[in-house]
Amino acid sequence: MERRQIRLGLVGYGEVGSGLGTGLRQEGLKAIAAYDIGAFEGPFSALIQERARTAGVTLVSSPAELALAADYIISAVPGSESVTAARAYRDHLGPQHVYVDIASATPSVKRRVAEALEPSGAAVGDGGIMGSPLQDGHRVLIKASGPAAPAFHDALSPWNMRIDVVSPTLGAGSGIKIVRSVVMKGMEALFLECALASERHGIQDEVFESICAFMDARPFMDTVRFLLRTDVIHAERRAEEAGMSADALDEVGLEPVMTRSTARTLQRVADLHLKQQFGGLVPDDYKTAVEAVDRRLRAAELR
Amino acid sequence: MERRQIRLGLVGYGEVGSGLGTGLRQEGLKAIAAYDIGAFEGPFSALIQERARTAGVTLVSSPAELALAADYIISAVPGSESVTAARAYRDHLGPQHVYVDIASATPSVKRRVAEALEPSGAAVGDGGIMGSPLQDGHRVLIKASGPAAPAFHDALSPWNMRIDVVSPTLGAGSGIKIVRSVVMKGMEALFLECALASERHGIQDEVFESICAFMDARPFMDTVRFLLRTDVIHAERRAEEAGMSADALDEVGLEPVMTRSTARTLQRVADLHLKQQFGGLVPDDYKTAVEAVDRRLRAAELR
Repeated sequence: MERRQIRLGLVGYGEVGSGLGTGLRQEGLKAIAAYDIGAFEGPFSALIQERARTAGVTLVSSPAELALAADYIISAVPGSESVTAARAYRDHLGPQHVYVDIASATPSVKRRVAEALEPSGAAVGDGGIMGSPLQDGHRVLIKASGPAAPAFHDALSPWNMRIDVVSPTLGAGSGIKIVRSVVMKGMEALFLECALASERHGIQDEVFESICAFMDARPFMDTVRFLLRTDVIHAERRAEEAGMSADALDEVGLEPVMTRSTARTLQRVADLHLKQQFGGLVPDDYKTAVEAVDRRLRAAELR
Repeated sequence: MERRQIRLGLVGYGEVGSGLGTGLRQEGLKAIAAYDIGAFEGPFSALIQERARTAGVTLVSSPAELALAADYIISAVPGSESVTAARAYRDHLGPQHVYVDIASATPSVKRRVAEALEPSGAAVGDGGIMGSPLQDGHRVLIKASGPAAPAFHDALSPWNMRIDVVSPTLGAGSGIKIVRSVVMKGMEALFLECALASERHGIQDEVFESICAFMDARPFMDTVRFLLRTDVIHAERRAEEAGMSADALDEVGLEPVMTRSTARTLQRVADLHLKQQFGGLVPDDYKTAVEAVDRRLRAAELR
């Protein structure tokens, strides 16, 4: 695809917005405007103005001005502000606009963004940022979806943004990001709980060495498959072991927040009695195991 | 080390005990006796007798008999029964005995095992099994510790048991196993929660592909270090994101057991205000981050 100068607007000029603005200006994109509610008053106004001036990004003073200055608009506000931000643009956008919300938020938030903008006729898309915009700037990988995703991709990929269009369904890209975080943020919490317990038990190096020896011996997906396939058979025994792990944390005065939830989650699987359904045999495919758990959970909900 | 015929006793002849007995007999160890409370009555007695007969392991009918038949005793009962099992041997063991408990249990359980056996004068050790005795039989890796660990290692390593003596402190080997399970069992619960959410959001393949792309790009310990180092700086933002992940589960009718605990764990770190202590800069070393969290947690407990 050829580089085509477009008029870009950034809603929110925090870490993500300024990372995009700075990087895209360096790539040679000329017209970048930004609107941030904290740009002219509040504790971060000086920082925002400085960042914009250094990058060569024009700060505008209202959503109406941003809509006039830009055809492609990327919203990079906190997810809790996504819908409010979108509402401020409803009366200023038209069918010539492409509006893509890349905040970390649930698919339903993105659907409410689209609903808010529907009267304007603008094309709406959403995206989930995979990785760190602080490290990678405008080159951070974005999983994009929704009606506007292809246009977003075509206009900005030539400027070295990494946009992966995953689905025409609005919210899918954001969903990948936010569901991925179940594991990514969950691991952070697990590692911390494990590190604190290891430290207090005086075995920090040994514990992580042992975990890494297992994890580095195979591709990560093999571990995912192994644990999910065996989960439906061995959940009860593992729930008991997780309970003892929690006891080991209690013994050194640490509240086993993650580990008690682990025991509860595994016990909940044990209580579904899938071991009987599978005749005590580990299923060949992890999806078979997950679907079996899901079916029983849904059945339990309906009861 | 040379192979020396020893008289081995197994306390508990379930999956672990029978795995050890079968494998060690095949290696050529001649004298193996086992005592299991379910060997002669109860639902598993036929199975236990069959396994022992096939392996060539002698089932004895009391702890007293086992103590007479063996010098090295390995206890492989469920962790909840470790102390009760040890008490049954107190009056039958003497200073000539080595008694090693390899159940999955906390270090304090292993200390109570040692206390129970102290009057006998037997040397006591403990171990934690790393991996699957079902898969690896007597070759499963055991992290051993306590006063009897070296003798246990020297007597059984020549018979191809994999015994790693990690500490003279009783309970250390078991602690490694049980604290390691914070992560290993925790990941199982995280993967399940993530897989269920991905399935219901219709993005199962994409989510795990994205996670694996990140995890397989670097050694596991690099991820551990990265998440723990940055945790003290970015916990607040990540707690908010985990909260949104939990919302994304609620939206599809899944109880976000692990993800709510993740949000709570990360928020708890945010509330320690370590970002200020580190001047907003990510510490170079993950242990610095963990120790800082631990210090504040201890200070909060004392308050």
